[in-house]
Amino acid sequence: MALLNEDRLFPAEEKTRTIARRLYAEIRSLPIVSPHGHTQAGWFAHNEPFPDPVALFVQPDHYVFRMLYSQGISLDALEIGRTSIEEPRKVWRLFANHYHLFRGTPSRLWLDFAFETLFGMTNRLSGETADLYFDTIEAKLRTAEFKPRALYDRFGIEVLATTDSPLDTLEDHAAIRTSGWNGRILPTFRPDPVVDPAFAGFAEGIAKLGALTSEDTATWRGYLKALATRRGFFKSLGATATDHGHPTAQTADLSEAEAEWLFGKVLGGEANAAQQEIFRAQMLTEMARMSLDDGLVMQIHPGAVRNHNAQVYAHYGRDMGADIPGPTGYVEALRPLLDRFGNEAGLTILLFTLDETVYSRELAPLAGHYPCLRLGPPWWFNDSPEGMRRFREQATETAGFYNTVGFNDDTRAFLSIPARHDVARRMDAGFLARLVAEHRLEEDEAVELAHELTLGLVRKAYKLGSA
Amino acid sequence: MALLNEDRLFPAEEKTRTIARRLYAEIRSLPIVSPHGHTQAGWFAHNEPFPDPVALFVQPDHYVFRMLYSQGISLDALEIGRTSIEEPRKVWRLFANHYHLFRGTPSRLWLDFAFETLFGMTNRLSGETADLYFDTIEAKLRTAEFKPRALYDRFGIEVLATTDSPLDTLEDHAAIRTSGWNGRILPTFRPDPVVDPAFAGFAEGIAKLGALTSEDTATWRGYLKALATRRGFFKSLGATATDHGHPTAQTADLSEAEAEWLFGKVLGGEANAAQQEIFRAQMLTEMARMSLDDGLVMQIHPGAVRNHNAQVYAHYGRDMGADIPGPTGYVEALRPLLDRFGNEAGLTILLFTLDETVYSRELAPLAGHYPCLRLGPPWWFNDSPEGMRRFREQATETAGFYNTVGFNDDTRAFLSIPARHDVARRMDAGFLARLVAEHRLEEDEAVELAHELTLGLVRKAYKLGSA
Amino acid sequence: MALLNEDRLFPAEEKTRTIARRLYAEIRSLPIVSPHGHTQAGWFAHNEPFPDPVALFVQPDHYVFRMLYSQGISLDALEIGRTSIEEPRKVWRLFANHYHLFRGTPSRLWLDFAFETLFGMTNRLSGETADLYFDTIEAKLRTAEFKPRALYDRFGIEVLATTDSPLDTLEDHAAIRTSGWNGRILPTFRPDPVVDPAFAGFAEGIAKLGALTSEDTATWRGYLKALATRRGFFKSLGATATDHGHPTAQTADLSEAEAEWLFGKVLGGEANAAQQEIFRAQMLTEMARMSLDDGLVMQIHPGAVRNHNAQVYAHYGRDMGADIPGPTGYVEALRPLLDRFGNEAGLTILLFTLDETVYSRELAPLAGHYPCLRLGPPWWFNDSPEGMRRFREQATETAGFYNTVGFNDDTRAFLSIPARHDVARRMDAGFLARLVAEHRLEEDEAVELAHELTLGLVRKAYKLGSA
Repeated sequence: MALLNEDRLFPAEEKTRTIARRLYAEIRSLPIVSPHGHTQAGWFAHNEPFPDPVALFVQPDHYVFRMLYSQGISLDALEIGRTSIEEPRKVWRLFANHYHLFRGTPSRLWLDFAFETLFGMTNRLSGETADLYFDTIEAKLRTAEFKPRALYDRFGIEVLATTDSPLDTLEDHAAIRTSGWNGRILPTFRPDPVVDPAFAGFAEGIAKLGALTSEDTATWRGYLKALATRRGFFKSLGATATDHGHPTAQTADLSEAEAEWLFGKVLGGEANAAQQEIFRAQMLTEMARMSLDDGLVMQIHPGAVRNHNAQVYAHYGRDMGADIPGPTGYVEALRPLLDRFGNEAGLTILLFTLDETVYSRELAPLAGHYPCLRLGPPWWFNDSPEGMRRFREQATETAGFYNTVGFNDDTRAFLSIPARHDVARRMDAGFLARLVAEHRLEEDEAVELAHELTLGLVRKAYKLGSA
Repeated sequence: MALLNEDRLFPAEEKTRTIARRLYAEIRSLPIVSPHGHTQAGWFAHNEPFPDPVALFVQPDHYVFRMLYSQGISLDALEIGRTSIEEPRKVWRLFANHYHLFRGTPSRLWLDFAFETLFGMTNRLSGETADLYFDTIEAKLRTAEFKPRALYDRFGIEVLATTDSPLDTLEDHAAIRTSGWNGRILPTFRPDPVVDPAFAGFAEGIAKLGALTSEDTATWRGYLKALATRRGFFKSLGATATDHGHPTAQTADLSEAEAEWLFGKVLGGEANAAQQEIFRAQMLTEMARMSLDDGLVMQIHPGAVRNHNAQVYAHYGRDMGADIPGPTGYVEALRPLLDRFGNEAGLTILLFTLDETVYSRELAPLAGHYPCLRLGPPWWFNDSPEGMRRFREQATETAGFYNTVGFNDDTRAFLSIPARHDVARRMDAGFLARLVAEHRLEEDEAVELAHELTLGLVRKAYKLGSA
Repeated sequence: MALLNEDRLFPAEEKTRTIARRLYAEIRSLPIVSPHGHTQAGWFAHNEPFPDPVALFVQPDHYVFRMLYSQGISLDALEIGRTSIEEPRKVWRLFANHYHLFRGTPSRLWLDFAFETLFGMTNRLSGETADLYFDTIEAKLRTAEFKPRALYDRFGIEVLATTDSPLDTLEDHAAIRTSGWNGRILPTFRPDPVVDPAFAGFAEGIAKLGALTSEDTATWRGYLKALATRRGFFKSLGATATDHGHPTAQTADLSEAEAEWLFGKVLGGEANAAQQEIFRAQMLTEMARMSLDDGLVMQIHPGAVRNHNAQVYAHYGRDMGADIPGPTGYVEALRPLLDRFGNEAGLTILLFTLDETVYSRELAPLAGHYPCLRLGPPWWFNDSPEGMRRFREQATETAGFYNTVGFNDDTRAFLSIPARHDVARRMDAGFLARLVAEHRLEEDEAVELAHELTLGLVRKAYKLGSA
């Protein structure tokens, strides 16, 4: 018995599957480029062992605990939101007893991949095997080859980006660079805490930004200079990209006087919701302008209604599996930014979405025209086999492959990284195999594309060099 | 020749089809649980024979006559809207002559299923076979085994829910319960006529509600008490669920004073469209509150623009195939209700949609988080092979299987019930088979899921017991 | 080696592919009916040779140059927007060097089809083969069999419609009719320049309309009479249809007094954006009324945000690959028109969309009910293999096949016409084959449908007679 079949995720049709196998064989062992995610630089700076199976697989993974919660298991019973797990084995058993809930979900694929390839498990996780899993995983976590740096190497990671606040001092990143370890961990400049007036602690953040940069961030110009300075600092530690998690894709192009006035309002806490939205919109355009200066690639991740569950937010805080996507428009929203910078070949903006209806209607036509636009991979809820298939089917015919930028795992769960990239490689191999089997592409072209989708496009889009 | 092939609706790919056959064999003969539909309790109370082929297959089925109408056949020629059919054979021939219009539609699958399994027809319906069909069906309808109760048994129905106004006295339901017949026909509490101010006869309905319950329904409190009383009455006759067919999914959470004031406005006929919408929204939240008290499961069926064709509505009334779906949002619409009751594990709310764009974007993320939410099956226009496939492909990866509730047929056409459930079982078998063939699921798990999707989940969600 | 495989675009699964081959064999050589497109009547009136490969394949095809532009190639380098190409071989090499960008796009399929079937090329276009292609194509273009009329015959075109302004004098169409050549080139009445107040030169156009018809187009009545007169003129030269490229599908039904007042506003240039929208909306209803009089079929093509790229528009003008679709609603938008004319069996309105979310939600339910409505084929960005598949999968179950109207190519690139129809025939054969392989349709029915989808439905919908 095994958890993983060699042909998993390939189309069942034999001619197509045979082609998919060949394409996958070309790319399965290529290095992992992970340009966007939420792992912690501290893991690699300190290289401490991961604590226990629950702290590794359940607590940090909102994909996992939201599903359990949706079926009536309380977050308290899962010890969510605690700094340390009191009864890890008990939580693990609860998880194991409900493992059937993940049937048909990508979490199941990612977990099984880690269970088998890292921990050698071959019988499915269940109430019966819960303790075997727990004991096996816990024992291995104590060994040297399960420390973060060893896993980084074992996973074949070429480069791994974290996501960081402009207020972060990036000490862990600095420590890694001076440690002598040759792993490549890069920060990403994610300014939401200091550009989104609705972010908790916005004004304090801006004051802190001033302190960090010795700029007068109480003024619009000082604020912009401080942001540029921090971008430069991030860049000095290897950053090649910024990231923007706005509620919408709205951009704006205000005059300097208007922007200055608006900045006063939001800083003073007097801006209403519409003014806050315009401020965020303006800041996307300001960030694009700075990108033209410093070359950092812009990632726009819009469309999540954050913290939809008020009670859960009140008791447990952010990132508790209660962010819900809404309809997200790009055509009018991006126009102010594109009117100004849309034809700059030196600018790269990567668009992501949680609203799949825009793949064929808006994103592919936009990316299939504007030189600065590229399409990020299917994201979050859509980082899944069917989600990937829909993205390729709906975006490729208008945007082509070369206006996309490969895969990113966007994960907080370090051990899921190889699994997630493996799913993407298999799904791309399967999609390309279908095009070949239907004689819409020759196999030599599919091979070239498989390499591009795995390594070429991501390295180029994120300016990561070629290894 | 035959109308039905044993492998119909299974994927053509041989490995997958073989698995689908095995899965389907497990579930094809399981009892039918029909928790939501529009059959008439009177059929089973009185057990009279069905009149003629047209009264059975054409007149009650807006799927059928809307298609004929769309191709230029007048509703008068089809004798739609008449209490009795004057020239059933003539109407039948008209239908038979245009049977090709249904190619590629689920109606064709449902009709062929009934024609072959119930009436032994093996040659396709057409102008040539019209009379043979008419005579055969008419003759069989006069026999004892074609009376409603006999068909109920023959279909293997375990339980069948109707949909009823709070103003309905449920005499037929009561008569069935005292008749000694062991069929299980349950009412469903559908309060639209007395909670939707736009419903024709709203104020009269509320007065009648008062008379039925001896409550003063001219007051907000009396009105709520009367509704609670009627819910209790429905429950006493077996009801386990309520149903809400609102234009949108909007909910509200007004203060009692606001609600009382608004009730006065709508009752007095002075509320504008926006106020009527808020009133409906508030009533969804009130119904959720009552569900927490009495345990009735809530079904929300939003999104149809009713009676879109003004001329057809003026001449023929409601339910004439002219209801057209529009875009339907859930994320903000449900928030007021969810803010109040979203974390109540004792509450069950089943969400339906006519807007497929929300499966992956809104419904699966909501149901994959909130303990009270489950996803109803693809509904109405989406109760079709491709509709079912899209639902599974778009909802499963985020919501899993266990946040769905099996199939319901939602039909007015009694004879289509086995056909509709058969389509659903075949499509589920095919979907599960694909997951197995692509090694995303083991076959033993698929077998377990096939049973759950057919019986387990629906019995549990609707609190119907286990046979 | 060859560019084209005999089985291209058919499903890989062997049973299904075998059926698809049989269905396609039935229709592959049927004549081409092209009821909607943007070729130029002048080509056939003057029958001059096409100039060079770039003028044929690159310059007129915004599908081609927008993709190159999106990847950083300037429009100037492609000599876009020039009246004659100065360095065609240089542009051709640029195109050839980037031919890999079109992998996975329909442009690639269309181009390869023309390259192989017309020019005998068998090695893929690339930097290496650029000159061979250029020389071969250029040489052939100088021969008699590559003149427009010869190609028309060679393509097996039965009828070809152009799209024309009401201000066009249709001299080329008249010349063709008196030329003795038996090709059937029909004009289409596209009144956007004189019914859309936002169209550049709107007021001048209306004055010119008056001059052409000797009506006082400064008055509402004179304006309407002038439009009716021009419709009659188009009809006298063979037109069977009108076409309406509005930003939205909005219709209106104003009183005559309101319409008259609004006409004064828009003609005087005093109307704001909302009033302009109502005017366009009213004009759709006026056009429907005229269609009832003169029998011209109405095509509504809404949903493109035109000229999204302000800089490109300023330098290069319209139709530069920068039109981007937005969300498009039909249910409420069409209501005013449908309230008035929706039940007229004598009226035919063909609905198109760039927003695929409406196929199952709005368009199929509308066309599956209203006698006057039919669904146009997938259009523009969706005129592609996956776009066609989605259309059939999402529209057929509710609208059936008979509420659709076959394929149209909508192209400016004359040489892509046979390729585009071939793609449509192959995709329809594949879709029908799947229904047969899944036993949802018998093969004799699929054969009948294949003929209908290729010829029967389009001839009937556009009133083109049967050859």
